[in-house]
Amino acid sequence: MDFALSDKVLQYRERLQAFMDAEIYPREQEVHDFVTDPENLWKVPPCFAPLKEKAQAAGIWNWFLPKEYGDFSPGLSNLEYAPLAEVMGRVPWSSVIFNCNAPDRGNMEVLAKFGNKEQQERWLGPLLAGEIRSSFAMTEPQVASSDATNMECEIVRDGNEYVINGRKWWTTQIFHPHNEVMVVMGRTDPDAPRHAQHSMILVPTDTPGFEIVRRLSAFGSWHSPGGEGEIRFTDCRVPIENLILGEGRGFEIAQGRLGPGRFQYAMGFVGLAQRCLELMCRRVEERVAFGQKLSEQSSIRQDIARSRCEIEQLRLLVLAAADKMDHFGAKESRDMISMLKIIAPKMCQDVADRAIQAHGGMGVSQDTPLARIFHQARFCRIADGPDEVHMSQLARMTIHQVLRGD
Amino acid sequence: MDFALSDKVLQYRERLQAFMDAEIYPREQEVHDFVTDPENLWKVPPCFAPLKEKAQAAGIWNWFLPKEYGDFSPGLSNLEYAPLAEVMGRVPWSSVIFNCNAPDRGNMEVLAKFGNKEQQERWLGPLLAGEIRSSFAMTEPQVASSDATNMECEIVRDGNEYVINGRKWWTTQIFHPHNEVMVVMGRTDPDAPRHAQHSMILVPTDTPGFEIVRRLSAFGSWHSPGGEGEIRFTDCRVPIENLILGEGRGFEIAQGRLGPGRFQYAMGFVGLAQRCLELMCRRVEERVAFGQKLSEQSSIRQDIARSRCEIEQLRLLVLAAADKMDHFGAKESRDMISMLKIIAPKMCQDVADRAIQAHGGMGVSQDTPLARIFHQARFCRIADGPDEVHMSQLARMTIHQVLRGD
Amino acid sequence: MDFALSDKVLQYRERLQAFMDAEIYPREQEVHDFVTDPENLWKVPPCFAPLKEKAQAAGIWNWFLPKEYGDFSPGLSNLEYAPLAEVMGRVPWSSVIFNCNAPDRGNMEVLAKFGNKEQQERWLGPLLAGEIRSSFAMTEPQVASSDATNMECEIVRDGNEYVINGRKWWTTQIFHPHNEVMVVMGRTDPDAPRHAQHSMILVPTDTPGFEIVRRLSAFGSWHSPGGEGEIRFTDCRVPIENLILGEGRGFEIAQGRLGPGRFQYAMGFVGLAQRCLELMCRRVEERVAFGQKLSEQSSIRQDIARSRCEIEQLRLLVLAAADKMDHFGAKESRDMISMLKIIAPKMCQDVADRAIQAHGGMGVSQDTPLARIFHQARFCRIADGPDEVHMSQLARMTIHQVLRGD
Amino acid sequence: MDFALSDKVLQYRERLQAFMDAEIYPREQEVHDFVTDPENLWKVPPCFAPLKEKAQAAGIWNWFLPKEYGDFSPGLSNLEYAPLAEVMGRVPWSSVIFNCNAPDRGNMEVLAKFGNKEQQERWLGPLLAGEIRSSFAMTEPQVASSDATNMECEIVRDGNEYVINGRKWWTTQIFHPHNEVMVVMGRTDPDAPRHAQHSMILVPTDTPGFEIVRRLSAFGSWHSPGGEGEIRFTDCRVPIENLILGEGRGFEIAQGRLGPGRFQYAMGFVGLAQRCLELMCRRVEERVAFGQKLSEQSSIRQDIARSRCEIEQLRLLVLAAADKMDHFGAKESRDMISMLKIIAPKMCQDVADRAIQAHGGMGVSQDTPLARIFHQARFCRIADGPDEVHMSQLARMTIHQVLRGD
Repeated sequence: MDFALSDKVLQYRERLQAFMDAEIYPREQEVHDFVTDPENLWKVPPCFAPLKEKAQAAGIWNWFLPKEYGDFSPGLSNLEYAPLAEVMGRVPWSSVIFNCNAPDRGNMEVLAKFGNKEQQERWLGPLLAGEIRSSFAMTEPQVASSDATNMECEIVRDGNEYVINGRKWWTTQIFHPHNEVMVVMGRTDPDAPRHAQHSMILVPTDTPGFEIVRRLSAFGSWHSPGGEGEIRFTDCRVPIENLILGEGRGFEIAQGRLGPGRFQYAMGFVGLAQRCLELMCRRVEERVAFGQKLSEQSSIRQDIARSRCEIEQLRLLVLAAADKMDHFGAKESRDMISMLKIIAPKMCQDVADRAIQAHGGMGVSQDTPLARIFHQARFCRIADGPDEVHMSQLARMTIHQVLRGD
Repeated sequence: MDFALSDKVLQYRERLQAFMDAEIYPREQEVHDFVTDPENLWKVPPCFAPLKEKAQAAGIWNWFLPKEYGDFSPGLSNLEYAPLAEVMGRVPWSSVIFNCNAPDRGNMEVLAKFGNKEQQERWLGPLLAGEIRSSFAMTEPQVASSDATNMECEIVRDGNEYVINGRKWWTTQIFHPHNEVMVVMGRTDPDAPRHAQHSMILVPTDTPGFEIVRRLSAFGSWHSPGGEGEIRFTDCRVPIENLILGEGRGFEIAQGRLGPGRFQYAMGFVGLAQRCLELMCRRVEERVAFGQKLSEQSSIRQDIARSRCEIEQLRLLVLAAADKMDHFGAKESRDMISMLKIIAPKMCQDVADRAIQAHGGMGVSQDTPLARIFHQARFCRIADGPDEVHMSQLARMTIHQVLRGD
Repeated sequence: MDFALSDKVLQYRERLQAFMDAEIYPREQEVHDFVTDPENLWKVPPCFAPLKEKAQAAGIWNWFLPKEYGDFSPGLSNLEYAPLAEVMGRVPWSSVIFNCNAPDRGNMEVLAKFGNKEQQERWLGPLLAGEIRSSFAMTEPQVASSDATNMECEIVRDGNEYVINGRKWWTTQIFHPHNEVMVVMGRTDPDAPRHAQHSMILVPTDTPGFEIVRRLSAFGSWHSPGGEGEIRFTDCRVPIENLILGEGRGFEIAQGRLGPGRFQYAMGFVGLAQRCLELMCRRVEERVAFGQKLSEQSSIRQDIARSRCEIEQLRLLVLAAADKMDHFGAKESRDMISMLKIIAPKMCQDVADRAIQAHGGMGVSQDTPLARIFHQARFCRIADGPDEVHMSQLARMTIHQVLRGD
Repeated sequence: MDFALSDKVLQYRERLQAFMDAEIYPREQEVHDFVTDPENLWKVPPCFAPLKEKAQAAGIWNWFLPKEYGDFSPGLSNLEYAPLAEVMGRVPWSSVIFNCNAPDRGNMEVLAKFGNKEQQERWLGPLLAGEIRSSFAMTEPQVASSDATNMECEIVRDGNEYVINGRKWWTTQIFHPHNEVMVVMGRTDPDAPRHAQHSMILVPTDTPGFEIVRRLSAFGSWHSPGGEGEIRFTDCRVPIENLILGEGRGFEIAQGRLGPGRFQYAMGFVGLAQRCLELMCRRVEERVAFGQKLSEQSSIRQDIARSRCEIEQLRLLVLAAADKMDHFGAKESRDMISMLKIIAPKMCQDVADRAIQAHGGMGVSQDTPLARIFHQARFCRIADGPDEVHMSQLARMTIHQVLRGD
């Protein structure tokens, strides 16, 4: 648990910081205006491609993939990556520029960890190069996906093919013009034990029998250019080679997939919350009402103090979680991961809420990133499983630890 | 303080309820899809005009205007209107159909109460008939509008005209195609006492020197077809007859304007929160996770119980406020009005938040009104003055009442 | 739902107010010092007897008993009693002076409603006269009493006697020197349907086989002179005439018992919270820190505003509940009663917490009633069934009402 | 920031743990019963003296004094002490046994850091040996002590003596039978700059002119055997040698005094909260209501999950604060110290509140330490300066850091 930043990380962070200052922050408004302009629905902002090239040239690329992934990884540990993830997190779309964005991030991990050679060559290579995008299809509209064992989408073997039938929604990045493949989770054996019924399989987006039913808005936003959609598989056939790891191993893969992703997104929320706090501090120092700077009002100060306390605490917890994952792996770190999932989005929502309130009308408008951050945080209290599910699991783990005397 | 519904109100409510069931609820998704489709920006949904005709024919029209307004009013007291406002409030755009929507509602009150005969003929008549729409321009971007005496927009007399110079933002309904007139508040005399410097004036939207600078989004929404905008007055001239009530009487008018409006919008939030609660109850009764109906989970029950408690309490407080206004006028009811402003949007946001969480992914999508309600409630914690300002005023009133021994 | 105070109630309130000012408030510190002095454990403050005589002479006596109780009642409806209960509630021990204190209050209701003539003559008469005190024994240490059907204390018929065996705790007022009788709830028939297994029976405190095992502290207080205790029945025999209403009717009685009691204690919390608010207002107006009156700090103002909002809302809800009970009875008003139980103590705890914080060190000391109020409120979130049980029941009722379309 | 426990600390913790198991936990109920028995007011539990001897023999003594204090210190850094403080914190009075209790702890630090040789010999020696006890007198009843510059107690030089006049309250440990000396803060020069007016001086408790006016209860408890009191100085004379460090340096001393103390007491709250969590986990696993183990209720699980999240986060923050103090000193760590003060007691109060609720009646009684922990946590939100003051300071520091670009 040594959280001091090594020289290497300090150097990486400096490089990243310089890139953010020179290339990302100056384009923030432009990108926001582009993606929210209905004319541009599902179009990628033109600045993305050159920015990605620059990022790759600067060596700020694929940092998310921990060094245990060997050659695929640029070689950072989770603990080393964490402070860098915070910096990137301050501008959510920057993760695209650094090829660290969801759901590609998780899909790349799955393929690097569980994919076979052919899968890695065909899909992982282009993903790591940022040439194609991918989707993740898990949640289903007709069942409570908080309990993932409810999933009903069928994946049935028929000779050398698997035949997929079912509906999914909240399939991420499904509208992206470069999206070429989906990781789909479904049930291969309804008679197996509860956690061995499901499998994950790769489905190219041009496979016959697959269709996008409709787009979904999240708090009124289409999340262009990636988007989320409801999709349908009707006798959709893919070769058996597309199955990942093996039949019935879907939950095993899901576990591995979610750990690092959640730690990274938690650190992203630290970055976003920190940014809200900074905006709030600047605002209240310059704004005057009723003859007093806002920064002199005790209620404003309490908002700032509470936000600071919450951010510092979560930052430390993410570091501790990263460190635990580095030493004991994602499975042993499930309690930490659950805590991050429970705390991070709600904390960020609260900080954003206070910052909005301190900004008045400007805070809800397009003139600051606050309203977008508020949305993203609120949205993530549902995405990846509602907070409540994680609280339930964490409580169970905690009770067991206490009874065992840990 | 007799809150029992009279036969008259019961009859009105039944009529309204029937109209909601027959005409409003069935068009809810259609209207939502229309106003969020970028193709239709600033266009009025085609069903609005025929619906307004039907509403007028059914006598559900202008109910918001209390009977003290004499001939202009359909004759309901505030207390009588309250339970009807709750029913309308369940679908926010229905207030347009019943000609009870903001900011026309407040502007009509101002004109009915303070306007002279000419002003009433030219503007109030068409507004009451639902033929034209209007704007309200008060907030300014460069000063803290929580302290309204900060307003800097200049209204300077020059012969038979007033010359207006300044900027406003969050000017409501400014993009509406039928918007013909703005009520503008500005400073006529910077040397007068603090609350006698400002005046209100009527400015037709086609007056030279007036321009819309840009549109403003609220949590990402344009609020079409009304919208909110940033506007600019540059040597914009209107005849002196357009001044309302007299120079320096802007705050006096503002006081009168805000009372009934706030009570009505508070009841709207009761309606919205009640609706969220009902959606939540239905959802958790039919959804199963981890082998249990959601409705059997104690945390879900606590969410429902808390919501119920909060809604019932606010409903009673709105009735008490309406009753107080009926008997003692808006000025004497300022403490009640402040309470409503403080409680209503936050309560509705909380209830919507819980309902969203109980709905999972569906809760944040376009498939329920929950995300929209969440937005509207959050937005209104800023609009009409941030909650904090009202808390400050209420506290001052409360301290005085205690010290006086009330 | 006419909440305006009638002339009769105004007159009663004036009389009560005068009594509080002349006799109660001036003795508040004296009584507090007496009951917390360990020398006086289980002794009644000497001023109580003369004060009770004065109260009886002033006709401020047994007001809690609603007029449906006929000759036993002084003739107030629940709605009429509510505002009087608030005034009494401001000094908790004043209810003893006015013979309106728990658990005698509830026991008198039970006897008046369900007792037979002999029971009324022997016990109700002296209780109504304030000559004796009584206990209520329901909760048991070894089972979760939140689920009352768990109760295991046995009441077995043997000839002309019932034989009681079992343990109870949190038996209220058990140490009071004038305590002469207990209402005990226990199981008469373990084979009956779940809500027909239990009965209530009267047990004189001098019955052989009954013993007090120990005293219980609540947040460190012994609640002298009444106290709460753990008790044991070992082959404790009482005549069959002591059974109330009939075998298996314990829950029926419990329902009737709890309704009015809860509404009255909710109004007591309104009175206590109001008092905290007033103390806070006075304090912050006179105290200066960092060059500013505390009352000018925005965070203090928010504490006051929130408290005011919460108090006003609960007061209205209590009135509405009282009114519903007057018109439809306690059973039909269960949803209102549950709301009061959920809201009242927590609200009062929160207001007291804020008032304490505004008082600094004085707030936690014996120099104000704030710490005592804080305690009492916190304690009552457990007493009478934890909040969680009431939330669960209210949610179930709410879901049914929504599904039925109420 | 390396939080891993060294072998040395692991060894110390094991020794401490063994002592807690063998000597402290088994006497917890006995000590509680002793100190709350009014017969024993201001008497030290008889087991304390032998326990202190055993602790000293076991080398568990004065660990709180960081190694920067040289020979006075047993040689632990703040970071090393932190996990040990958590273990001790689980039973608050154990700090007395290990000679690490407030206010002696802080007084010893002051004397070790700022005392001259004579002061150290006369007072520090016996304090370090646990032979005498001491008080700290700072807060005054008539002024807002949240703003310490308000302090009015006068310390005026007269020849070779200082003459003290004034009142103090919340003077800690003043009733302890072994209390021999007070550290008193007062104003030596009203004309000096605001933070150079005050000084600290040593006053033996047998000095003429000093008297205890009365005892103060905190939430009804006398905190025997130490207690808190209101005291008065009337021309109380002490030799000039008793002044600490120099005239006008009171705030300088106060700063140094508060840092380590607050970090240690924060870790104590981590220990207490952890204990509440463990009690709650055990309880809900064994208790059944409505046919279900409490541990299976989702609301209970949320309470456990939230508590776990809050505890883990604070534990990390305390470690980070300890580490910062070790490297940069208390002054540079003021932001961290403020955060601990703001978070720790409120967090512990919340966790205790949930644990109480899960225990029902037992939770508020003397049968668990929960009610005592709840009290202590609530009390500490006032003691050492109300949370609000620390929030204000932290906000100011945060704003400056943001504006400076830290």
